This record gives sequence, structure tokens and C-alpha cells, in this order.
Amino acid sequence: MWRGGAMARLAVAARAFSASASAGGGVAMVQGASRGIGLEFVRQLLRRSDQGRVVATCRAPASAAELQKLKEEHAPGRLTVLPLDVTDESTIEATAASIAETHGSLNLLINSTGILSIPNVIQPETTLSKVQKSSLLLAYEVNAVGPILVIKHMRPLLKVGGRSETGRGFSLVANMSARVSSIGDNGLGGWHSYRASKTALNQLTKTASIELGRKDNIACILLHPGTVDTDLSRPFQRNVPKDKLFTREFSVQKHLSIIDNVKKSDNGKFFAWDGQEIPW
Amino acid sequence: MWRGGAMARLAVAARAFSASASAGGGVAMVQGASRGIGLEFVRQLLRRSDQGRVVATCRAPASAAELQKLKEEHAPGRLTVLPLDVTDESTIEATAASIAETHGSLNLLINSTGILSIPNVIQPETTLSKVQKSSLLLAYEVNAVGPILVIKHMRPLLKVGGRSETGRGFSLVANMSARVSSIGDNGLGGWHSYRASKTALNQLTKTASIELGRKDNIACILLHPGTVDTDLSRPFQRNVPKDKLFTREFSVQKHLSIIDNVKKSDNGKFFAWDGQEIPW
Repeated sequence: MWRGGAMARLAVAARAFSASASAGGGVAMVQGASRGIGLEFVRQLLRRSDQGRVVATCRAPASAAELQKLKEEHAPGRLTVLPLDVTDESTIEATAASIAETHGSLNLLINSTGILSIPNVIQPETTLSKVQKSSLLLAYEVNAVGPILVIKHMRPLLKVGGRSETGRGFSLVANMSARVSSIGDNGLGGWHSYRASKTALNQLTKTASIELGRKDNIACILLHPGTVDTDLSRPFQRNVPKDKLFTREFSVQKHLSIIDNVKKSDNGKFFAWDGQEIPW
Repeated sequence: MWRGGAMARLAVAARAFSASASAGGGVAMVQGASRGIGLEFVRQLLRRSDQGRVVATCRAPASAAELQKLKEEHAPGRLTVLPLDVTDESTIEATAASIAETHGSLNLLINSTGILSIPNVIQPETTLSKVQKSSLLLAYEVNAVGPILVIKHMRPLLKVGGRSETGRGFSLVANMSARVSSIGDNGLGGWHSYRASKTALNQLTKTASIELGRKDNIACILLHPGTVDTDLSRPFQRNVPKDKLFTREFSVQKHLSIIDNVKKSDNGKFFAWDGQEIPW
């Protein structure tokens, strides 16, 4: 009886919590949201319901004009813009604390940052002779270390989100990877720093997915957006056939369709924009 | 006639070069040779013929007692011990210059360094909560960046070795990876820093193999040694069944058998100690 009573009380508390989470339509965080695919995720997540709340993070919220504009266009509280630099762990911790205070949970985390080229800093290598230690380490820090530290610090919030009835019955982490991270699919070579960092992200995501899936009702997936017309891909679009160069709108629609339909058994998988699984 | 004459002269020169390389039985470099599997590679490579020359590198040759002992046991010139720290690129360049002067070529390069645990510095993580940025970056620098920079700087020497008739008709790079680097085979999770760094090494090796195989007659393979009784594995041997804990002698014998029998078409592949291919 006592145990039954305790369980019943817990169930009531859980229902109350879920109801309040449902009223809010869930909380999604998009990390790396000031431009490109991240910004488009924020735009579409805000548009698809008048309930869901979105936390958008970027290095410098004050100068993220598009995010500030989106914030004005939507009801107060629907979009929160917070500072987060994946290379500075203290900003990740501070943002986690801020979300805990304002929202109390996360149902979806999309890691969308990525570094491919910055003039005079990092360039995709065309040959081994051009591979520099500094580029290898920078790409790894931004593309692999950054997202896994974000998951580490958002994990308690995602765990709470995984207990709520909002959405799919578990929390989801979606990390933006890229097909060039596939070792099995690598037939051309080149792009050493970028490839290796995203391959490592795949392994880190798979590794985390095992623990988080088992203990916290959180699933983790990897996504390949195709070649999307963004600042990241612009210097490398020349050889992409026109019908293979996607708009951000199209790519994010496709990704949200995957995110909507993902099952718990998809935990740890790597999907292309069209839903096809990509080999490791 | 002129062309035929030039080709004949080239062929004579090539034969003369090959003859001199053959007389020396080829030059093998073992990077990370002061202990563990690397040291055993040096020992067995020296023992298997009275011709082949071996370049063993480690951070501090003067205090590498086992290597110095091997040097004394063999004829002058058969073993050269040179300083190389994979985290200091200038030592890689200096060692490449030294080998160029003394030997002029390399037929085999074995990258055997690896970091898994150092008390108070890095430990295999049992949970995401224990993942530290410093460990992720250190493991990447030693296990992934180091070997690829060694290949970058030894490439000209391997290219010369690939033109000689010593051995297999192409030069070979063998990088020590580990089964836990396989994303497809990852069913347990944990060991985030080590796993991700070795997975990245797999991708970097595959990427380099495409260019080096095509342009320079160099093949690159990855090897999984099994759990070998070394300083690296000692803290983690408790749960390894006795018949799965290999001696260094056994593991290196198996690897040298793979290295002896590798074909150019194996370029870019990942083999376990028993010759089975490991999925990415």
C-alpha cells in the first residue's frame, strides 16, 4: 500500500509536470544559431507551433541581428537568445544554468556549429603536405569537443525533458555531422582536419548515446544536411550540381521530418537529409 | 632509339639503387619504440634478418635502456635510435632530416605511440560526466595528430622506399589503432577521449592512404593488437580473460605476419591481430 501510494503521488507529480511542459509545447535548444542551418532551425521551430519555446545560442547574441529580429516577431518568451562559445566551457555551463532557471528542461538539443574554413586560419586541405597541427586541433575543438561538452552540461535538463510527455516520449540530441565524416564512404581523400573532427564527433555521439539512452531516456542521432547554400559551403559550391545544392529551408524541413519521426531504437544512428542511414 | 636509350639508362640507375637498398634489407622505422609493442617490433625486426636496418624513435633515447641494449647486441648501423616527440613537430622534422642523411629512404613506418591513461592527467572515462576538454585534446594530439604529422614528414622517404625493389614493391605505413575505435562495434560506450582519438586516426589514415597510394606507391593500414600485456593496458586487464591477454611477442608476431603479406589492394584497411578486417 505504501509503495502504491508513493507511486501514485509520483505519477500525479509527473502528470502535473508534464501538463505544464505540454502547455509550453516543449523546449528546444539550437546551438550555433546565428546563421546558416542553425538559424533556419530556429525559424522553422518557432513557426511550426505557437507554443514551443526555443533557446538559440551563439557567440555574440547582441550582434546576431537575425535572431534578434525573430525574437521581436514572436510572442514574449518564445525565443531566448543566450551566449555560448563551444571553445569556452564556462559559457556552456552558464547557459545551462540560465536554461535551468528559465525553462527547467530541454526536450530537443540541436548542435549546429561547425568550422570548415576561415581565411588565414583554417582551410580544407587538398593534400597531406598542407595538413597543419593547428588546423587539426582547431577543427577538433569546435566540431567534436564543443558538441560533446554541450551535451555533458545539458544532460540534466534533457533528462528532465525525457520524463515529460511533451513530444516523443524521450529527449533527443541531434548533432550536425556530414557525409565526409564517413570512413567507409571516403573515396576522394582530402579535407583531413574537417573529416577527422566530424568522424570523432560521430564516435563521441555514439559513445554518449549508449549511456544516455540507457540511463536518462535521451536518444542521440547524427545528421548529414547535404550541401546547403550557407556561408560554410559557399567557397566550395563550384563543383556541386545545381540540383544537389539545397536551400536552408529545404534541408531543415527534411531534418525536422527526421527529428519528428525518430524512434528510441534509432538512438546512435547517422541519417542523411533524406532519411537514409550513412555507414560509419 | 633516344627514348629507349634514356629508359635503359634509367633502368640501370634504378637497378643500382635497388641493389644498394636490397643489400641493406630495407629500412623500417618504429615510432614510439621505447617500450610496449613498439619496442617488441624493433626487437623482432632486428632478429628476423641480419640485413634490415631499423630506426627506433622515442622521446628520450638516452634513457631508453632497452633500445640502447638492443643497439649493443646488433651490428653497428643496424639500429639507429632518434629522438621524436609526436607533440613537437620540430622533432619529427629533425628526425626525418636525419634519416634522409643516414638511410635515404624508408620501406616501412610503424606508428606505435598511444596514450590511454596517465595518473592525474588522463583516464579512460566511465561516464560522460567525467569527460574533460583537456583529456579529449591531449588524446587527439598524441593518438591522431601525432601519427599523421609523422607520415607527412616521412612521406618523401617512404616515396623513395616505394621505388626500391626491397620487400613488397611498395612502402607501407602501419598505424596502431584499436578495436574500441570502431563506431560500428561500439556497444559498451565509455573511454570517450581514447575512442574518439583512435577513430579520428582511422579517418586520417584512410584519407592519407588515398593520396599516398595513388601518387607515391605507399600503402597505409591500421592494426588492432588485441589486449596486450603492456604498461598501457595494465590498469585495465582485470576483466580480460586470460586467453585474451596476449604477450607482446605473440601480438607483434601476428602483426608482422600481416605486414609481410599485405597487398597494395589492402591500402586503407583496418586489420585485427588475426587478420580479420574490423568495421569502421
